[in-house]
Amino acid sequence: MEQKDWDKIIIGIDPGTNLMGYGLLGIKGKTPHMIVMGVIKLNRLEDHYMRLHRIYERVSGLVAEYLPDEMAIEAPFFGKNVQSMLKLGRAQGVAMAAALSRQVPITEYEPRKIKMAITGNGAASKEQVAAMLQRILKIDKEQMPQFLDATDALAAALCHHYESMKPIASSGAKSWKTFLAQHPDRVATPKKPAK
Amino acid sequence: MEQKDWDKIIIGIDPGTNLMGYGLLGIKGKTPHMIVMGVIKLNRLEDHYMRLHRIYERVSGLVAEYLPDEMAIEAPFFGKNVQSMLKLGRAQGVAMAAALSRQVPITEYEPRKIKMAITGNGAASKEQVAAMLQRILKIDKEQMPQFLDATDALAAALCHHYESMKPIASSGAKSWKTFLAQHPDRVATPKKPAK
Repeated sequence: MEQKDWDKIIIGIDPGTNLMGYGLLGIKGKTPHMIVMGVIKLNRLEDHYMRLHRIYERVSGLVAEYLPDEMAIEAPFFGKNVQSMLKLGRAQGVAMAAALSRQVPITEYEPRKIKMAITGNGAASKEQVAAMLQRILKIDKEQMPQFLDATDALAAALCHHYESMKPIASSGAKSWKTFLAQHPDRVATPKKPAK
Repeated sequence: MEQKDWDKIIIGIDPGTNLMGYGLLGIKGKTPHMIVMGVIKLNRLEDHYMRLHRIYERVSGLVAEYLPDEMAIEAPFFGKNVQSMLKLGRAQGVAMAAALSRQVPITEYEPRKIKMAITGNGAASKEQVAAMLQRILKIDKEQMPQFLDATDALAAALCHHYESMKPIASSGAKSWKTFLAQHPDRVATPKKPAK
């Protein structure tokens, strides 16, 4: 399909300092389709800044090529130690800068939330997530990637799509009360039968 | 002085998630001069991504305006907790992306190292660093900033200038042995007195 034919394009990112996964999801109506997925290999670059530069360049390139409407990013909230979290934060930061410089809004999801959205099990393995994605998006076996960072990124994009279809989440309201206050037209009131 | 008159321009950054300090240092010969310093205020922006976007935009703007040759960044290696380190990493990441996207090389310095370079005391207060900078760079009292994040950033730039004047540090060599191997011309060998 041509780029202009999609109703929405979501870029999913699974940031890491050795491999960064990405996945582009095109939405037509309510149906998600995989456009492309892959990984940005960083482990051959010894220098930390070279890695950050590579992430920035590649994510900028993807954003320029596919013009996504939204970015979904897998973001663990807890890590092993402060050192690894600082490095992860930097990797996330440069990927986010690539989106923010083109006004692409970002939403982040915890790994557990993404796994739950895709497989119904927050503790699912990466292989289970990949297998479920393959079924949902009808991805050919030959198209399945070597590295599961790619499917993890696509999973983040699909999780974001599911979230944005939920009326409450997409309205930004935090409770039924505020949702109803914001959308009085959506309140079902009993109508008198037409005479 | 005109921009083209400087032999080198260094941008110093003190990243934070509430206030980000910056300082531009122009080098003429071996003498450093303050070009400008200030802070990017982030605390009025509630949204985390808005803050990151603001950092990226402002640092990109400074890089585009002053065309620095190098970036020096104050980077603490240890923080209170993984959450604050992740946020700090993101702030550093977007600032770094602004430099990396224009091929400006980055060097980071621990706060202790910067304080030591400027005041001779690794445990100096921010006020002591600011007072020393004022003397070294002959900054008018009226030009001294309200927020010490600005002087901290300028201190990072000056620390980088001092480091780059050290022959070993600037050659990238890690020991005298490798330095001597790389610079045989700098080895002083006894010469016979001219007849």
